[in-house]
Amino acid sequence: MADKSAQVQSISDAFRVRPEDFDLAEVDPGATPVGPRSKREAAADMAVIGQELDRLQEALYAEGTGGGVRRVLLVLQGMDTSGKGGTIRHVAGLVNPQGLRIASFKKPTRTELRHDFLWRVRRQVPQPGYIGVFDRSHYEDVLVARVDNLVPSTEWRRRYRQINAFEAELAEQGVTTVKCFLHISPERQRERLIARLEDPLKHWKYNPGDLEVRAKFSRYQLAYHDALVKCSTPVAPWYAVPSDRKWYRNWVVAQLLLEALRDLAPEYPQPSYDPAVELARLQEADPLR
Amino acid sequence: MADKSAQVQSISDAFRVRPEDFDLAEVDPGATPVGPRSKREAAADMAVIGQELDRLQEALYAEGTGGGVRRVLLVLQGMDTSGKGGTIRHVAGLVNPQGLRIASFKKPTRTELRHDFLWRVRRQVPQPGYIGVFDRSHYEDVLVARVDNLVPSTEWRRRYRQINAFEAELAEQGVTTVKCFLHISPERQRERLIARLEDPLKHWKYNPGDLEVRAKFSRYQLAYHDALVKCSTPVAPWYAVPSDRKWYRNWVVAQLLLEALRDLAPEYPQPSYDPAVELARLQEADPLR
Repeated sequence: MADKSAQVQSISDAFRVRPEDFDLAEVDPGATPVGPRSKREAAADMAVIGQELDRLQEALYAEGTGGGVRRVLLVLQGMDTSGKGGTIRHVAGLVNPQGLRIASFKKPTRTELRHDFLWRVRRQVPQPGYIGVFDRSHYEDVLVARVDNLVPSTEWRRRYRQINAFEAELAEQGVTTVKCFLHISPERQRERLIARLEDPLKHWKYNPGDLEVRAKFSRYQLAYHDALVKCSTPVAPWYAVPSDRKWYRNWVVAQLLLEALRDLAPEYPQPSYDPAVELARLQEADPLR
Repeated sequence: MADKSAQVQSISDAFRVRPEDFDLAEVDPGATPVGPRSKREAAADMAVIGQELDRLQEALYAEGTGGGVRRVLLVLQGMDTSGKGGTIRHVAGLVNPQGLRIASFKKPTRTELRHDFLWRVRRQVPQPGYIGVFDRSHYEDVLVARVDNLVPSTEWRRRYRQINAFEAELAEQGVTTVKCFLHISPERQRERLIARLEDPLKHWKYNPGDLEVRAKFSRYQLAYHDALVKCSTPVAPWYAVPSDRKWYRNWVVAQLLLEALRDLAPEYPQPSYDPAVELARLQEADPLR
């Protein structure tokens, strides 16, 4: 991937999954093909990105209050320890929480299982003007559901098309969807699991089932590969984010979010009132003066 | 209030509404009775508060993953321009967004109006381990509902008791409720409304109806006074936060949130597994090594 960097136009170009020639096995989770070369450079960048995100997010929020329907949905997927939580802290933490809505999708409840798999997801789609973040998502329904045979293969195979239809529908409603697969190596996952087990303050992040899931690492990679290839569409692309280095992962996701907002170019709404008239009302007819 | 500061034990003591001798008309929105004396001092404090909040919030979140039921609900109420949004940005922005859930209560929808006034509120109560923030709340149902006669007086009068019962129920479920009334003066509101009208980037924050509401300032103060007095209970106290100075308002709310978390003293759960056994599994029987 490194040799492609010269032609790279944007971070979204660098990491977008192009179904026609994508092979997850060829993506190096430790790569840093474009952008900052060190944690320190990345930190400096993040501060700048944060400022621009802040401006764009406020404009998006303002646009929403003026009747605009546009919004952004950042979907985070990845194996245990790939850093979904860390990405939320460091990337979502850059924006104003007032305009942010985070949804975590855990093992479905009995109520959720009585509905179509997209039912609980639709309820969490961000409202106009908001940046939504999905910590896991409807993709679990073609990942764990497939690897653990929770549904027949005819069922999960059908879901790719249903997901694409759903995401196309979201796009028509004004949702810009940015899907990030946080790609880590089994070696790095091992290190991080050990770190969790060695630090009592991290014990809560671990449970023995994590090793059962880890044992299926290659089956998950295949399931991810298929999900990325089948569901990376022009209106809702997947990005394969090298995530062995936390600082690089955070930088890439922040940059992808920034580029999505730049492309949207949200606009402050024209006021539906005359500011001069209102100022006069307040200055001349204010009953509380 | 300033002369009481010598005996003050905590910020919650300083600002808690004690129904027996509370008079909103006596609370100075410009006061800074305890704590930092300047914006600069407050900023230094906020950095320290942020670090402690971060530690406590992580412990609360961890406790929740281990079966704990405790959580925190921060309720923000106040007149237009009192700074609910700014408080969310600067106080909620101190904590990890992953453990934060913000809900905004706007004018009820038709669906919401078909239900009891607490229906939409119950759906937004934070889950165990989370810090929830309500940007407006069920108190609108004894504020605008009363001032604008949206319901008969028999109806809104009944709601104080219903609210107290609801909040007592939340307390029993493990919710620590911290309710902040962001108290501003009409003069300061006037300045902030003018600022919104004079800055095109703030026009979206204003609408002409704001002046109609402003004209009812004193009726709202009475409605707030009653809500604070009738619904400041031991399990869900109200705090009257002087909010003419933004830096002071943010500092007080941050400190109230911090004190609530300190009182909870959340604890990391004991692991339900043996870390040594798991480490051995990972070191000796890892199929991916």
